[in-house]
Amino acid sequence: MTSFTPAPSTADLGVVGLGVMGANLARNLARHGHEVAVFNRTPVRTEKLMDRYADEGAFVPAAELADFVASLRRPRVAIIMVQAGAATEAVIDALAELMEPGDIIVDAGNTLYTDTRRREEALRERGLHFVGMGVSGGEEGALLGPSIMPGGTAESYDRLGPMLESISAQVDGVPCCTHVGPDGAGHFVKMVHNGIEYADMQLIAEAYDLLRGVAGMSVAEIAEVFRAWKDSELDSYLIDVTTEVLSRTDPATGGPFVDAIVDAAGQKGTGVWTTQTALELGVAVPAIAEATFARAASSSAGARLAVRNASFDAGAQPPALDAPEAREEFVAAVKDSLYGSKIAAYAQGFDEIATASGLYGWQVDLGAMARIWRGGCIIRARLLDDITRAYDEEPALGSLLTAPVFASALEAVLPAWRRIVATAALAGVAAPAFASSLAYVDQLRAERLPAALIQGQRDFFGSHTYHRVDDPEGTYHVTWSAPERVEEKWA
Amino acid sequence: MTSFTPAPSTADLGVVGLGVMGANLARNLARHGHEVAVFNRTPVRTEKLMDRYADEGAFVPAAELADFVASLRRPRVAIIMVQAGAATEAVIDALAELMEPGDIIVDAGNTLYTDTRRREEALRERGLHFVGMGVSGGEEGALLGPSIMPGGTAESYDRLGPMLESISAQVDGVPCCTHVGPDGAGHFVKMVHNGIEYADMQLIAEAYDLLRGVAGMSVAEIAEVFRAWKDSELDSYLIDVTTEVLSRTDPATGGPFVDAIVDAAGQKGTGVWTTQTALELGVAVPAIAEATFARAASSSAGARLAVRNASFDAGAQPPALDAPEAREEFVAAVKDSLYGSKIAAYAQGFDEIATASGLYGWQVDLGAMARIWRGGCIIRARLLDDITRAYDEEPALGSLLTAPVFASALEAVLPAWRRIVATAALAGVAAPAFASSLAYVDQLRAERLPAALIQGQRDFFGSHTYHRVDDPEGTYHVTWSAPERVEEKWA
Repeated sequence: MTSFTPAPSTADLGVVGLGVMGANLARNLARHGHEVAVFNRTPVRTEKLMDRYADEGAFVPAAELADFVASLRRPRVAIIMVQAGAATEAVIDALAELMEPGDIIVDAGNTLYTDTRRREEALRERGLHFVGMGVSGGEEGALLGPSIMPGGTAESYDRLGPMLESISAQVDGVPCCTHVGPDGAGHFVKMVHNGIEYADMQLIAEAYDLLRGVAGMSVAEIAEVFRAWKDSELDSYLIDVTTEVLSRTDPATGGPFVDAIVDAAGQKGTGVWTTQTALELGVAVPAIAEATFARAASSSAGARLAVRNASFDAGAQPPALDAPEAREEFVAAVKDSLYGSKIAAYAQGFDEIATASGLYGWQVDLGAMARIWRGGCIIRARLLDDITRAYDEEPALGSLLTAPVFASALEAVLPAWRRIVATAALAGVAAPAFASSLAYVDQLRAERLPAALIQGQRDFFGSHTYHRVDDPEGTYHVTWSAPERVEEKWA
Repeated sequence: MTSFTPAPSTADLGVVGLGVMGANLARNLARHGHEVAVFNRTPVRTEKLMDRYADEGAFVPAAELADFVASLRRPRVAIIMVQAGAATEAVIDALAELMEPGDIIVDAGNTLYTDTRRREEALRERGLHFVGMGVSGGEEGALLGPSIMPGGTAESYDRLGPMLESISAQVDGVPCCTHVGPDGAGHFVKMVHNGIEYADMQLIAEAYDLLRGVAGMSVAEIAEVFRAWKDSELDSYLIDVTTEVLSRTDPATGGPFVDAIVDAAGQKGTGVWTTQTALELGVAVPAIAEATFARAASSSAGARLAVRNASFDAGAQPPALDAPEAREEFVAAVKDSLYGSKIAAYAQGFDEIATASGLYGWQVDLGAMARIWRGGCIIRARLLDDITRAYDEEPALGSLLTAPVFASALEAVLPAWRRIVATAALAGVAAPAFASSLAYVDQLRAERLPAALIQGQRDFFGSHTYHRVDDPEGTYHVTWSAPERVEEKWA
């Protein structure tokens, strides 16, 4: 490695951390004509990259971080792609020591946006730009075109944006990359992207489970159903992935591959973050929460075993779907439910982004978020075209549910969606995200909610007060413990 | 105030913070024969307490915190009842400066257990005992007998416990107070208590909403239904509160009081904490989450207005319940749903406590928690007798659902519960906590969950690997992007 003697100050930008994601991002940049400095803490990865891919473009390898920084043209751009948390923090600190005012440090990992906000503020005081950048699309996306969500200053995007837009996925000639907003906005949007991904995957899983457990279809038949759904409004990468997984035969057993997999879903934490943050912000994201909890429930082996062994009669009554027409109608109704639930889940995610954007003054362009998710990322889907248009037509939508295209869609799917939630409940096949998404729509469209009763209860036992419909600004309390129970206006 | 000259070192314990809660706690202690030092930052509250209630017992008022501390017998006990957060932190710091090793500082506010753990550790290093103590029952409970959940060392409980047990609620001669466990255990259990309270209130609200919106019953009729439920397994304080609120006529309108209340539910944050913590711990508490999000949804005025104005046909079809027998059957089914959902919500809360107890080594006695919730607190209910017995019989229950008494109860209510969730979905009346609780039971009792498909998807797009049912310890990956798609064992 000591033989690496980088030419000073020529590289357009650099990548620190050459795991698969970082190496692929560096290669993607080099392939697009950018001169890319590369550095890894253990030099073996740098050597591997140079051995295998040096001919893909102009790489500038460095054995020492100081040489890496020296090899970058000014203002310098260094993209960090190492493990979130302590590893990222250490690299940021080391880079900040070596850089100069005006330089740009980019954290491309999945970092919690509050950490990004803290770091951005600290580095801003030292004259450095800090960009929290979401990158979606996995390893393949990083190499062939991811969806990129950079936060940070507009000034940093001037320097960084053209390079990122050249390597991102492109849809209809439009890059799947835009400046999301200041400080932590990029990481926030990426977090919500992942939360929506959790919901979408759970909804697909419920659709599969209903087709199998209620309609009694074989895995092969269900794979064909998902394949057919590609030619519909459900068209999405995750539908493709589902088709591939369900189509696979397990070589060891000769049966469906999905049946060979332990049914305990893992998670890396972004679904947890999205839900925790929504709770913090007071935004309802029940579909994302149910998806996250469904993974937790699936992984609670002890409780599952205990409940199965308790073997009480669950009173479940699957409907008879033997007639081909009945089954066909059921499949169509599941499709409607999936689409309706998906709209609700996206509405929740966009509501979370809109709320944070307002709170932090980010001015996130919601339509642009849908636009940059149309390619490269895990939740890329035909639906996003409609979301983009919906926000372009009315940027201040009170809820995605109210865009004309989605209001019509909901009207079309709601009757079948209701039947499926009802059938799942009666049949004893859990569909928590379908049910929760439907309840979300029904809550928002209700003229009156029983929250009024809850306010009455809270005033009774905790003097928490309430507002009156004939005086919504006033604060009232009933002296419940006194015999007269007089209503008092407290404010 | 300067006229207060406390006799040194005689008071059994002291209370700092004489708002309604603190004053009532001090009065409760004094009424039970304890000599109580009292202090408030602004002396007017101390004066008010002495003016009005000095004859209730032996109070030792102090104008300065140093005098307050000096008036306590050793080892000293000071209970803090001020606003959580900065105010509490300031009082703790000031007391710690004035106290000596072996003394006991008690935080009786709703403090997040992680803060309590941090403070306990810091004060332990200084030789002081720090007790995070949950107190439930509101203002009235504080005066007449609350449910008390103290954490901290066993040693501190030796000094503190007898006094607390003398003032707590008593049920069947058993005090609603016990040593919960070390450091933050008390505040943790109080937090989950409140989370269960959120779920219970939402479930009651959904029952009310279904009786009104689907069965078309009047508020007066529904009040009588709740009144009758008191003579059943649903008997609880919150059922009583509901009956009282629904029975009230609004003097201003002459109509039901509940209809005069703005239907936007407020919250103070413990439902948020319970859900956020469960996410952190990987424990599924969907009923508590749905309850918390339902409050958030009710308060999102902009989204609700926008969705109502979008006025799409929601395809809802309420069933015909005109015949008295049909309505009676519906009421009975709602009752079953409420009981089943309540069991599920408690199971979630106890699972959260059990998980934290294992993680932090608290060794919380779950049956004892149910026992001390039987009186004084907001969720006091007949159900808690069964929970106490269930854990007494089998302390290592894998889930509350599996206790024989609850397995039988579930078997009895599940058919009706399924019908109600189905009916709510078809009728367009949101019942998110009913539906979510049912799905929770159905997930835990499922032989196979579609989480297997989710693991397949995750391996496809993110190389997240999976376990095989024929080798649950092994870690596998399919080379999806290679043409052969070979399964590799990675670990």
